[in-house]
Amino acid sequence: MRIDCLIEAIERTGNPTALGLDTRVEFLPPSLAGFPTGRSVGSVRDEGDAEAVCSSMYAFNCALIDALADIVPCVKAQVACYEMLGVPGVRLFRDTLLYARQKCMITIADVKRNDIGITSGAYAAAYLEENSPLSADFITVNPYLGTDGMAPFLDACGKNGSGIFVLVRTSNPSAGEFQDLIVQDGEGKGRPLYEHVGQKVAEWGGNLTGRHGYSSVGAVVGATCPEEGKKLRALLPGTFFLVPGYGAQGATAQDLVGCFDGQGRGAVVNASRSLLCAYKKRNTDDFISAARDEALHMREELRAAIKNRHGVS
Amino acid sequence: MRIDCLIEAIERTGNPTALGLDTRVEFLPPSLAGFPTGRSVGSVRDEGDAEAVCSSMYAFNCALIDALADIVPCVKAQVACYEMLGVPGVRLFRDTLLYARQKCMITIADVKRNDIGITSGAYAAAYLEENSPLSADFITVNPYLGTDGMAPFLDACGKNGSGIFVLVRTSNPSAGEFQDLIVQDGEGKGRPLYEHVGQKVAEWGGNLTGRHGYSSVGAVVGATCPEEGKKLRALLPGTFFLVPGYGAQGATAQDLVGCFDGQGRGAVVNASRSLLCAYKKRNTDDFISAARDEALHMREELRAAIKNRHGVS
Repeated sequence: MRIDCLIEAIERTGNPTALGLDTRVEFLPPSLAGFPTGRSVGSVRDEGDAEAVCSSMYAFNCALIDALADIVPCVKAQVACYEMLGVPGVRLFRDTLLYARQKCMITIADVKRNDIGITSGAYAAAYLEENSPLSADFITVNPYLGTDGMAPFLDACGKNGSGIFVLVRTSNPSAGEFQDLIVQDGEGKGRPLYEHVGQKVAEWGGNLTGRHGYSSVGAVVGATCPEEGKKLRALLPGTFFLVPGYGAQGATAQDLVGCFDGQGRGAVVNASRSLLCAYKKRNTDDFISAARDEALHMREELRAAIKNRHGVS
Repeated sequence: MRIDCLIEAIERTGNPTALGLDTRVEFLPPSLAGFPTGRSVGSVRDEGDAEAVCSSMYAFNCALIDALADIVPCVKAQVACYEMLGVPGVRLFRDTLLYARQKCMITIADVKRNDIGITSGAYAAAYLEENSPLSADFITVNPYLGTDGMAPFLDACGKNGSGIFVLVRTSNPSAGEFQDLIVQDGEGKGRPLYEHVGQKVAEWGGNLTGRHGYSSVGAVVGATCPEEGKKLRALLPGTFFLVPGYGAQGATAQDLVGCFDGQGRGAVVNASRSLLCAYKKRNTDDFISAARDEALHMREELRAAIKNRHGVS
């Protein structure tokens, strides 16, 4: 089961971090051979041009993977950044995930797919099966359609050992607009929608628990909502968390430490812009060393926060 | 504004129907030149093979568009069916939407995208701008992340005249699991989540109303929930509905007629398998005539139901 592989890769690297390859053309450093500087996605004229841009982006992604594979256990790629480059972008997305897998990193396709059952089955075939054309170890999923829209994903997880992370409490400023609404669900005086969704996530994953006590069905829980993270950690002891929002979105290690369990496990924290653009903050063209420095710095921050809270490291 | 174009195309054809091109390899008729019969998506071996399958699917899609463009105003393509064929599938998705647009059909990319603001901006760039690489007149959107995840889509609608349909009450059996939960939202004794989301959809679209009184921000309302459809129609007079669930999912014209307004406007009804596989039900290889017969039959059913309820046709 990939959830076990993810947990073991985190132990091996001592680092519960995902490299968020939300790569954009604006993030590419001038030092990248052959890349015309000052490009933005709006300047991409046609598919041939998009292919040229994508080959620079592929070089960037691979260089980051090479630089971090020994200290960062997994990669999360945000598909929107690739879809905006059209068909060549989707090929780049696929090739990036393949390259990360070749380098023994766990892959998360951040696609937030969702649909009625028969259509979710098509998404599961696209991403979660052994020979899927856009294969990843995990994908992210939006729960709004309920159980029958989830069933094909759960089947794929059961059959192939792959996994999903279901949006529960997201990291964006408006997350609470619907997710924090108090719902009357027959359990006393009501509770926030995200808790209700979280409970369902635990049910969906009930039969898919791996050898480390965590299920193939995980939850997305934003680093930007510390209180909700702590509550969900207590409520969902068998659910692994994918935690976005660290760094550029404003959350610190202190904010998200409640997402980890008493053994310092149970979560993986995504960092995208803070790693991809570390070279900008450091005023250097050497994006590889800058990303590695930043990844090591983030690992220390996370370890210190976990040790401080749980007494483990 | 594309919402005005959609309404006018429905008037012109007298038919509030979307051709749902949820094309799957199993749907392809043996009569399609060069297509090896008995294929399923599981039998697609590699990308070269996927390309061959996609070229047959493109021929099928184009033949259906050609057959129906004078009597069906728009096409909705479900991206999952294309993503399951990988990169060639995404190219087929793009080419299908382009072909439909060339034939003056309105295009809806059924992608149910959703994310935090900055990432939704990437999706908007992928789909909703004038030169988007995967351009469509409308896309479908999932609301779970709230207003800031919606803002880039609204911006794109305002700038480019494109539109979105936001999931409000879906057509699948488990739709009510979260969508029907009673939420306490400060408006009296509580109301279902889908109504609360519907109200937000109306707010999001408030500044994007076209010349026929409907906004560029529409709602997805399942044909399989007649009571909810009627309530939402009354609650959201300026919101156009995309109505899935007719035909293969079990809903009849009678079930969904409450989604139309008193002038017989305000909704477009999607039909996928009932049109794509009409030839199977009729025991013929002539999928073109079968789809046309079925589309005309569906038009008559919808018109009769609307006339019966609203006294207009």
